[in-house]
Amino acid sequence: MSGLKPMDAEQLRENAHKMVDFIADYYKTIEDFPVLSQVQPGYLRDLLPDSAPTYPESLQQVFDDIQAKILPGVTHWQSPNFFGYYPSNSSVAGFLGEMLSAGLNIVGFSWITSPAATELEMIVLDWFAKMLKLPEEFLSAGQGGGVIQGTASEAILVVLLAARDRILRAEGKEALEKLVVYASDQTHSALQKACQIGGIHPENCRMLSTDSSTNYALSPNVLNEAISNDIAVGLVPFFLCATVGTTSSTAVDPLLELGKITKSNGIWFHVDAAYAGSACICPEYRHHIDGVEEADSFNMNAHKWFLTNFDCSLLWIKDRNALVQALSTNPEFLKNKASEANLVVDYKDWQIPLGRRFRSLKLWMVLRLYGLENLQSFIRNHIDLAKCFEDLVAQDSRFEIVTPRIFSLVCFRLLPPHNDETYATKLNHDLLDTVNSTGKIFVSHTVLSGKYVLRFAVGAPLTEERHVLAAWKLLQEEASALLAPL
Amino acid sequence: MSGLKPMDAEQLRENAHKMVDFIADYYKTIEDFPVLSQVQPGYLRDLLPDSAPTYPESLQQVFDDIQAKILPGVTHWQSPNFFGYYPSNSSVAGFLGEMLSAGLNIVGFSWITSPAATELEMIVLDWFAKMLKLPEEFLSAGQGGGVIQGTASEAILVVLLAARDRILRAEGKEALEKLVVYASDQTHSALQKACQIGGIHPENCRMLSTDSSTNYALSPNVLNEAISNDIAVGLVPFFLCATVGTTSSTAVDPLLELGKITKSNGIWFHVDAAYAGSACICPEYRHHIDGVEEADSFNMNAHKWFLTNFDCSLLWIKDRNALVQALSTNPEFLKNKASEANLVVDYKDWQIPLGRRFRSLKLWMVLRLYGLENLQSFIRNHIDLAKCFEDLVAQDSRFEIVTPRIFSLVCFRLLPPHNDETYATKLNHDLLDTVNSTGKIFVSHTVLSGKYVLRFAVGAPLTEERHVLAAWKLLQEEASALLAPL
Repeated sequence: MSGLKPMDAEQLRENAHKMVDFIADYYKTIEDFPVLSQVQPGYLRDLLPDSAPTYPESLQQVFDDIQAKILPGVTHWQSPNFFGYYPSNSSVAGFLGEMLSAGLNIVGFSWITSPAATELEMIVLDWFAKMLKLPEEFLSAGQGGGVIQGTASEAILVVLLAARDRILRAEGKEALEKLVVYASDQTHSALQKACQIGGIHPENCRMLSTDSSTNYALSPNVLNEAISNDIAVGLVPFFLCATVGTTSSTAVDPLLELGKITKSNGIWFHVDAAYAGSACICPEYRHHIDGVEEADSFNMNAHKWFLTNFDCSLLWIKDRNALVQALSTNPEFLKNKASEANLVVDYKDWQIPLGRRFRSLKLWMVLRLYGLENLQSFIRNHIDLAKCFEDLVAQDSRFEIVTPRIFSLVCFRLLPPHNDETYATKLNHDLLDTVNSTGKIFVSHTVLSGKYVLRFAVGAPLTEERHVLAAWKLLQEEASALLAPL
Repeated sequence: MSGLKPMDAEQLRENAHKMVDFIADYYKTIEDFPVLSQVQPGYLRDLLPDSAPTYPESLQQVFDDIQAKILPGVTHWQSPNFFGYYPSNSSVAGFLGEMLSAGLNIVGFSWITSPAATELEMIVLDWFAKMLKLPEEFLSAGQGGGVIQGTASEAILVVLLAARDRILRAEGKEALEKLVVYASDQTHSALQKACQIGGIHPENCRMLSTDSSTNYALSPNVLNEAISNDIAVGLVPFFLCATVGTTSSTAVDPLLELGKITKSNGIWFHVDAAYAGSACICPEYRHHIDGVEEADSFNMNAHKWFLTNFDCSLLWIKDRNALVQALSTNPEFLKNKASEANLVVDYKDWQIPLGRRFRSLKLWMVLRLYGLENLQSFIRNHIDLAKCFEDLVAQDSRFEIVTPRIFSLVCFRLLPPHNDETYATKLNHDLLDTVNSTGKIFVSHTVLSGKYVLRFAVGAPLTEERHVLAAWKLLQEEASALLAPL
């Protein structure tokens, strides 16, 4: 054997201390980088060799390459000037949890492969359900329970499969082509992808129209009508995905009314609160998920706006058996006493992959090292900053707020001169492009009722009022420059 | 706003240094823990509070709880005495890569969200393909390319979906119920799960019988016959999953002959080398994937036996468009110049979830900090240790080697006294239970042709000859004790 000692404790100690300093220094200087990477497609190919090295290189060489070649190609999601998409915020606690998880490097597919991984996940998901005041049926003590998925896409997929297989067990598998899924046209594209994967016919996916009259929330009447039409022609409604905090504009579907409809029609009701779920730990925002009592499953991403490093998507379900019946396998080589005796949860049967990381550690550490009260303040602060930005936009008559702000996202646009709506898209597209090209901030966009709209999402862990003010100043300046020649 | 500074660079530095020491100390003392956790189901519930804390706790309190409450519930996959399942080995380089990935905490779904994440992944997968001498069509320069999936389960699922949708585009979606999947009965349960998810009818999944005459490899004749029978009754063969290194016994399916059959029948040919793929970087083991030229897709897990911390499953595909056509979405809020101009790869369209971590960093660091030559020695050393164990077993007439050892797994069992085969299962089950209950080693099991068989897989990063010798001694002692009263 060569001299390679791949897991020598002292080598780990020495080198990992260096990595800690590298990462701490990165955060110290994070504002010096362009927020949105400014490299050109294919930039890295010429900077790296064509093949893996035959002999070892030093950690210093790797650090030098990270600094010179990798960091220029990074879009800095943790920068205080990152206002694009939704946040994916990190924290010291979340980072420490990731370190420990990577250090232990267990693969927790079955309880026996590390009981603590399964049990801590159950406990912490129960804690979180209580913080959100979810109904008791979502707790692990009864027939339900929580599980950490990688992403909301996977959460939607697994509940869609649970719902699909539940109805196919009742109706026979030939019914697949008759199954109909409902959601608003604001629903995340993950639903469409889940339908495609699960073999739901694309023409049976009802992406129901919304508009500004409901602030882009799904109308119960529209849903009712769609269901009636489908039943009339012999189709089988089976799944509704409602959203609390849509990706484009934080629209909130009316859960209570939608839930009554799904209940009376025997439809699986999933609530996707990937982004806005975090806000619901504050009593004053909890009402946005009123009606979750009616839901069969509920999802929020702790990795978005809850300081838990990516990935950590929380899914609760009332009938865990539905999930297990759709996703379980029981090969001989994984059989063990605890599983056979049905004494334990084996999370492999609640998810797509077999293997899984010890992700509950980071969420547990976020909750313990910060505490509920600090976490509520953290959310409120971001919402206050978004409100501050909204007020600034509202004071500048060249701009308009496109939908009322609900959480920490502001949807706005530059009004086209002379109400020239055909010019509006180009103008706002150019504004987006110009500000992002400065590298000083990163903002993203969407389209609402045909309008090209800028999205300003507050949520990075280092964002303070001064960053929001500077971002607004930059937007104003670039807007002035764009409008000047007209 | 409260005083919470969730991403303060100096707080990160101070606390992460403590975590480094905690993890380094863990590795220093890892042999002191029972390898298989000895806790009882539900042990943790009583040790932790019922709800999340309102106020912050200290890092020291968390460390104390990890030591006292979490570690007893951990099964120590990195222990040198872990011989169960297949390894999921970690390394200093892999750990450093995880740290950096968690530190940057980017979400690399589209190129623009961190160009370096996409481009490094393409480059490192090209490096790896060259190390394995995969055919050129798997490299990113042509129509193919590599991608990091979380697990082999996800790799199998995405290629099954790509194959399914390719044939349904040709045959019409009504053909779904006629699609037939082929594999040996030794194939990982992930295939069955993927079929279930993708709506392949269970009665159209041909898990073809194998036995000791081929050392549990799939016979081309058996495959040919099955395909002919299915075509004769109007079914549509569309997918073969072959395995190089099956989970039970490291059986190697004959890729070259199987590939000819799939080619002449227009069947998608996937090769799952999740475990044994790592060995194929050594010239003397590369012949086990001869015939991969015929495959449409190929998968191996760098997180199993390649020192790259979990998760990191490598998938190559010859026709990346097939994957993208099955899995792409294009919502407005993610549109950007580089993607619209088709200048870049957006890996979101190669996988189930939308979000993805910067996982290529850890693989890149493993390759650079160790180098190909050291990695080959590392693999060879484990195979030598397994051979050493095999020799020891062969010398003890109370035991038998059940299948010839090919890589670093030894399948063996205790022979029942008086050839009492009905007693053999209980005897070996008891032996497994007894040795695992000591906490000194962890070994797992399988069943081959009705025989209950013990599996001894060498692959943890700290395993040395002395650990293998001690494990054998323990097995012999416990066997003597079990046999004594007879």
